[in-house]
Amino acid sequence: MKTSQEKLVAPAETAIDRVGEAKINNPLSLGRFVDEDEAVLVHISRSNVELQGKGGSKRRAFFEPAGPRSRVYYDPSKTKCAIVTCGGLCPGLNDVIRAIVMTAVHEYRVPSVLGIRFGLAGFIPEEGHDIVELTPERVSRIHEFGGTFLGSSRGPQDPEAIVDALERMNVSILFMIGGDGTMRAASAVIREVVKRRLSISVVGLPKTIDNDIDFASPSFGFDTAVETATMAIKGAHVEATGAPWGIGLVKVMGRDAGFIAAQSALACQAVNFVLIPEAPFDLLGEKGFLAALDSRMKRRGNAVIVVAEGAGQDLLDQTSRTDASGNKILGDIGGLLKGEILAHFKAQGIDATLKYIDPSYIVRSVPANANDRIYCSFLGINAVHAAMAGRTNLVISRWNGRYVHIPIDLVTRGKKRILTDSNYWRAVLESTGQPATMRND
Amino acid sequence: MKTSQEKLVAPAETAIDRVGEAKINNPLSLGRFVDEDEAVLVHISRSNVELQGKGGSKRRAFFEPAGPRSRVYYDPSKTKCAIVTCGGLCPGLNDVIRAIVMTAVHEYRVPSVLGIRFGLAGFIPEEGHDIVELTPERVSRIHEFGGTFLGSSRGPQDPEAIVDALERMNVSILFMIGGDGTMRAASAVIREVVKRRLSISVVGLPKTIDNDIDFASPSFGFDTAVETATMAIKGAHVEATGAPWGIGLVKVMGRDAGFIAAQSALACQAVNFVLIPEAPFDLLGEKGFLAALDSRMKRRGNAVIVVAEGAGQDLLDQTSRTDASGNKILGDIGGLLKGEILAHFKAQGIDATLKYIDPSYIVRSVPANANDRIYCSFLGINAVHAAMAGRTNLVISRWNGRYVHIPIDLVTRGKKRILTDSNYWRAVLESTGQPATMRND
Amino acid sequence: MKTSQEKLVAPAETAIDRVGEAKINNPLSLGRFVDEDEAVLVHISRSNVELQGKGGSKRRAFFEPAGPRSRVYYDPSKTKCAIVTCGGLCPGLNDVIRAIVMTAVHEYRVPSVLGIRFGLAGFIPEEGHDIVELTPERVSRIHEFGGTFLGSSRGPQDPEAIVDALERMNVSILFMIGGDGTMRAASAVIREVVKRRLSISVVGLPKTIDNDIDFASPSFGFDTAVETATMAIKGAHVEATGAPWGIGLVKVMGRDAGFIAAQSALACQAVNFVLIPEAPFDLLGEKGFLAALDSRMKRRGNAVIVVAEGAGQDLLDQTSRTDASGNKILGDIGGLLKGEILAHFKAQGIDATLKYIDPSYIVRSVPANANDRIYCSFLGINAVHAAMAGRTNLVISRWNGRYVHIPIDLVTRGKKRILTDSNYWRAVLESTGQPATMRND
Amino acid sequence: MKTSQEKLVAPAETAIDRVGEAKINNPLSLGRFVDEDEAVLVHISRSNVELQGKGGSKRRAFFEPAGPRSRVYYDPSKTKCAIVTCGGLCPGLNDVIRAIVMTAVHEYRVPSVLGIRFGLAGFIPEEGHDIVELTPERVSRIHEFGGTFLGSSRGPQDPEAIVDALERMNVSILFMIGGDGTMRAASAVIREVVKRRLSISVVGLPKTIDNDIDFASPSFGFDTAVETATMAIKGAHVEATGAPWGIGLVKVMGRDAGFIAAQSALACQAVNFVLIPEAPFDLLGEKGFLAALDSRMKRRGNAVIVVAEGAGQDLLDQTSRTDASGNKILGDIGGLLKGEILAHFKAQGIDATLKYIDPSYIVRSVPANANDRIYCSFLGINAVHAAMAGRTNLVISRWNGRYVHIPIDLVTRGKKRILTDSNYWRAVLESTGQPATMRND
Repeated sequence: MKTSQEKLVAPAETAIDRVGEAKINNPLSLGRFVDEDEAVLVHISRSNVELQGKGGSKRRAFFEPAGPRSRVYYDPSKTKCAIVTCGGLCPGLNDVIRAIVMTAVHEYRVPSVLGIRFGLAGFIPEEGHDIVELTPERVSRIHEFGGTFLGSSRGPQDPEAIVDALERMNVSILFMIGGDGTMRAASAVIREVVKRRLSISVVGLPKTIDNDIDFASPSFGFDTAVETATMAIKGAHVEATGAPWGIGLVKVMGRDAGFIAAQSALACQAVNFVLIPEAPFDLLGEKGFLAALDSRMKRRGNAVIVVAEGAGQDLLDQTSRTDASGNKILGDIGGLLKGEILAHFKAQGIDATLKYIDPSYIVRSVPANANDRIYCSFLGINAVHAAMAGRTNLVISRWNGRYVHIPIDLVTRGKKRILTDSNYWRAVLESTGQPATMRND
Repeated sequence: MKTSQEKLVAPAETAIDRVGEAKINNPLSLGRFVDEDEAVLVHISRSNVELQGKGGSKRRAFFEPAGPRSRVYYDPSKTKCAIVTCGGLCPGLNDVIRAIVMTAVHEYRVPSVLGIRFGLAGFIPEEGHDIVELTPERVSRIHEFGGTFLGSSRGPQDPEAIVDALERMNVSILFMIGGDGTMRAASAVIREVVKRRLSISVVGLPKTIDNDIDFASPSFGFDTAVETATMAIKGAHVEATGAPWGIGLVKVMGRDAGFIAAQSALACQAVNFVLIPEAPFDLLGEKGFLAALDSRMKRRGNAVIVVAEGAGQDLLDQTSRTDASGNKILGDIGGLLKGEILAHFKAQGIDATLKYIDPSYIVRSVPANANDRIYCSFLGINAVHAAMAGRTNLVISRWNGRYVHIPIDLVTRGKKRILTDSNYWRAVLESTGQPATMRND
Repeated sequence: MKTSQEKLVAPAETAIDRVGEAKINNPLSLGRFVDEDEAVLVHISRSNVELQGKGGSKRRAFFEPAGPRSRVYYDPSKTKCAIVTCGGLCPGLNDVIRAIVMTAVHEYRVPSVLGIRFGLAGFIPEEGHDIVELTPERVSRIHEFGGTFLGSSRGPQDPEAIVDALERMNVSILFMIGGDGTMRAASAVIREVVKRRLSISVVGLPKTIDNDIDFASPSFGFDTAVETATMAIKGAHVEATGAPWGIGLVKVMGRDAGFIAAQSALACQAVNFVLIPEAPFDLLGEKGFLAALDSRMKRRGNAVIVVAEGAGQDLLDQTSRTDASGNKILGDIGGLLKGEILAHFKAQGIDATLKYIDPSYIVRSVPANANDRIYCSFLGINAVHAAMAGRTNLVISRWNGRYVHIPIDLVTRGKKRILTDSNYWRAVLESTGQPATMRND
Repeated sequence: MKTSQEKLVAPAETAIDRVGEAKINNPLSLGRFVDEDEAVLVHISRSNVELQGKGGSKRRAFFEPAGPRSRVYYDPSKTKCAIVTCGGLCPGLNDVIRAIVMTAVHEYRVPSVLGIRFGLAGFIPEEGHDIVELTPERVSRIHEFGGTFLGSSRGPQDPEAIVDALERMNVSILFMIGGDGTMRAASAVIREVVKRRLSISVVGLPKTIDNDIDFASPSFGFDTAVETATMAIKGAHVEATGAPWGIGLVKVMGRDAGFIAAQSALACQAVNFVLIPEAPFDLLGEKGFLAALDSRMKRRGNAVIVVAEGAGQDLLDQTSRTDASGNKILGDIGGLLKGEILAHFKAQGIDATLKYIDPSYIVRSVPANANDRIYCSFLGINAVHAAMAGRTNLVISRWNGRYVHIPIDLVTRGKKRILTDSNYWRAVLESTGQPATMRND
């Protein structure tokens, strides 16, 4: 996925905030501690490295590596943690929860890890959700199930009310698992914590089924989602080849970035058109999508189309409605394509057999596969190490193959997209055989 | 599935038509031949058996067992076969095709098996589809893929044109795999064959993803379809329990019979409402579905609903449109339920989180599982034995655990339904905890 | 599987024992009750039916259908149940346990269902195993895991000690899930119960991964086991075709009956030799296995062999050792074949590449598939109905597609085998292309 | 897996050999070309980067990024390619083959890609293997199957004979997919090519199911292998918890490196002991493995052990036999452990129930999962780009998330191991709860 050649805003600042000085010996008996001055390069191409050498230290950007430190800030025997999961489901949530609990309780001997139910709403007493005590026994098998053991919900809550709740429950460390809305909520919570001069660490774990968060490469659960989406595409392929003038149309997740569509097309190698938000297309006209589809159908007799839900939004009537998380409510590109394709062939007297498949929530509600399971474990483990060492206002991520600490602000600044001039996208085009662009101008 | 207690029309006549007298020694060297007077009872309960004893031979209904006969009608060395697959996809089609080819070529040394492409349309020269020579090499791995190697299509064709094609290609045996429309087409072809005094056998293999054909218990591919549908239901369960006021709604196939809905609910044991065509329900009113759902939600906070596509059609505006196979085009019960449920809770100031999953074609395009694979093999093997022995105008089916010959007319006469007073349906109700009826009167 | 044409000992007596007269109204509100005089025919072929008509009533054998009766013997509000699982693991055990608990508690409102841990040993206080209270909450998700929630163990225990325990715990109904050893133990327990004039029902649920118990067709978990075994065979096929002189050898379960070997070969359609206990073979000699393999290798360059663990035992040094369940400890046919095959080709200067795969316990420890899950549910449901109605000394099984009551003695009398003159075995031979016999005499 | 903190030999030289000057315009119309001076850092931690700045250019190690160049060396219209797969199977081989064929034929319009059958032996006329013409049609669905479409074999062949074959077939580009033996064979072929002053490029694609090749992180197929191995471990867990004194013992691949054992233990989170070659252990003694197991069993009643096949070799009688690839034939650690464990408990009068599972070849013969499928595609695509641009004597790999060119010598110099003082291994120990060392000294 690094092949997507994300165009990175050079991070001006990658230093991580700390709650205070870490003075207590880390109780961990095994493994090695990360030295305080270790760092890994953000940009690893020669041009960057050499420029950095010349350009002075402020151009030389490093991330702090994740891992245990020899000294911790919080006294483990007196530290209470809390975990909250927010927004839509994503494979691996339970693995992250489990790893945090196991590491906090078994490695640091923390006396209590609280589970906040149903997202940020769980902090608000009026919502009436219980707080759950997360013991190792309770979470030991949750990774075998999809979804989140804690429940989730969309939408913000007042940061003051959240910090009130943290104070009331005497929580020192809060782990927030969610999308960029949640990461912004984390920033707001931290500002309130700082304002009140509290010693509370907030560590974020960025979650996005669309894989569109910067500096998470890829985001956890994405691999599982792709694996699951390929099933629907296989079905579409079977349907398309099983009928005269057969067309399989699959809509997958991807509001602003088409990673699931592109990646699952690459995994299947049986897709003829991938439509993504990053590559706008015309329906009509000589170079438009319908002309390209027409040509494919007349040459080969069938076609498989994978469309990201956010693709082609300019072709639909625009609304300005948003959901509780503030996400724009998208127009129905799948329905539009289905109608237009059938009408296109009908006008030629051809009864195309179009089968429309929307695997929707199946893709995000499955348990994590082995790869994501391990990835999520390390995210959770490193989140605990970071927090215990007194870090705050950061997220845990994997970057260039290393687990690192990244300032929260950095991941919410931009969104990751597929670059349509990258070799990654070219591999998709090559795999599908679709035209490089489907625009008339 | 026999637990569905199908109410059977007592078959008046189960004797199987023959093309002519079987005089040639069967070349098979292994196994045992079925004696011409073997038969298995259609109804096996004591009341039927004893009545039969008393009531005279015309009440005593038996099916002819499938299997090889010691003498065959067709001279294997001069027999050409043809296979056609019609209508919607179903797991196991390729297994049936493969078994027919392997048995005809390897066991009977038949010189040629032709594949007719894209359903009955493949017989019509104007449609321009090629005929495929089906060799063992060509079909040896097709069972690893879903769909049909031959392609399929909907809709009837002129029986005269079909018989013209059979004569032109010099085909002696035609295997027709399809739904009840196809079985009726088979009858029409046979009538034309008889009219022309040809020696052509037609053997049907009834296919229905809905499991709604009489005397096929269950129909091939049904087990695989159920197994696949459970994935979507698992997803719905994860979504429903992962949000406050969470509701998972899954629409599955089942035009007139709710077997997939009921069976996959039994397999999951995580469904709270199963809505099927056989059990009409009211939406509103004290005993209606919404009241029952409301009660569940207020007790447990979440619910999973599985609805067969043909359920609740009386709640929708009726149309009289039909598709190419003559099937009525159904109203969108899933969409209706989604809207009504959300509105119901909205009116109480509750934002329910409803996730709607329609696994649709994923369910029918997967390769057969082991169970269906073997079942389909035996259907195909026995179809060849029947045809070689000169049988015609029959289907191969499994009844009370035996492979049998059933006159085509018998399977197209009625449709199998879930009996709502059966212990099978009671097991479903017990598993879901839903009210026995959701009608106000 | 009925295709295996089990040669049945005509049951002399299929009447079911009762603890006493059922006088209490059944609390079930839904579904229909089974009439006391309903019965289903044991043998359904014409010859049997008609002979029976002539031969008098004692030749006319019927099974009692399973299901709820309008009157029950035990007062549900005062009835305590117990469940025990014995012997080796088998997919579906947890589904049976779950169904018993759900039916007893939700349908009959029984106050308590006890779980006996680790097989019959759990009845013996000296063994120190706890008794578990099985509530619906506790068992609601156990079917998602393989194995048995209760644990299991091999070996008999003193029937008197078991009945002592039942009296001590005040248990009225005991469900015993296990192999034929366990069914014999059930008989012994019942004899002791009768001797003490107690009102205790014992209902058996026959379990056998080998599918070798009479009148269970097929046994629960068998379908799942076959599905899982096919994975290993696929692997063997890939290995065999991926190397020059490639041979894949897979050993599967099947002590006295080769059903898993035969059935998974049919499901894969990629096996060249199936070796089972029912078809003894010579290794050497013109018609022996090695000659047949040699011929295949020289024609095709690769071969896949599936061998049941109990095949070819006459080729191995005999021991008389048995395990705790009294099963003979088998010689290692897989190891023998591997050595002999390699030596055979080595002697010709050929380095065959033989890959030996023993999926062993993987096959029996997986969770049940959808088909087995539903099957097990109905076995469990019907076991509760039978016991509540005062039946005892029976097993629940499916016969000719119906759930029935079968006297325990009947299922332990003989063992089901593959008949090598059946069309079922012929389908296997046809699928593999192996010689009908590999004996020199 | 980067978490394994491979201790890297700082590469002295990472420049890539070229066959000659690339003067022909690249026919690719899409995507961006890699500039000739692009490079990515080998070591990305701060200490290395800054040292490099100071230490002079020879300490500053970069890899050449993979991808298409604006100019190619070979005239695509006259270029013949060949592919060979060597050694043991590994998931993804067919994906690599397919990607090479598709890229060469569709993107570069190369006229011919030859498939060499059964490894290096396929070059040797005396072995009598055919050469296969690999067209896009022929390879279009091979990725749906495990193994290698070309077949494979072990053992070296004379480099002169291989180059003779290349000359005879007029091959310009040879893709060699195999383990480190194969990579050494590639070096030998290149030396012979250079000696003969031929214009032939050789590009290697390192394959290792054990994930033990340097600079491949992880190796292709490893993720799929881990996913498959977890099934066996799940089975062992079910068996261990299903019996009193239950022990599940699973042997997985891993001759010199325990990555599969460690990674699948992390994925399962149900393993109590992971035994790997990198962490030698004593069986006996106070701190030995049996004492640790004894303690676990007495505390919890069951245990799951995963052992890499190469673990504990010092405990076994040493042999010096090797297989055709020159790999040492390992002693049977699984058998040893099974015997020792049973004897250990037997001596205490305890009948432990040990279930031994060896999933063996199942793990490596499955088709690649989505993740590996895409990975293999990019390896194949980039191999073609490299070769067309005139590169030779290199392998394609992914390093720090980038596809790069690595000199063949670099990957055969050392072997990747799990560092037992890494945080990766600590996570394994934490997950299992096993002692950090099981040595008495």
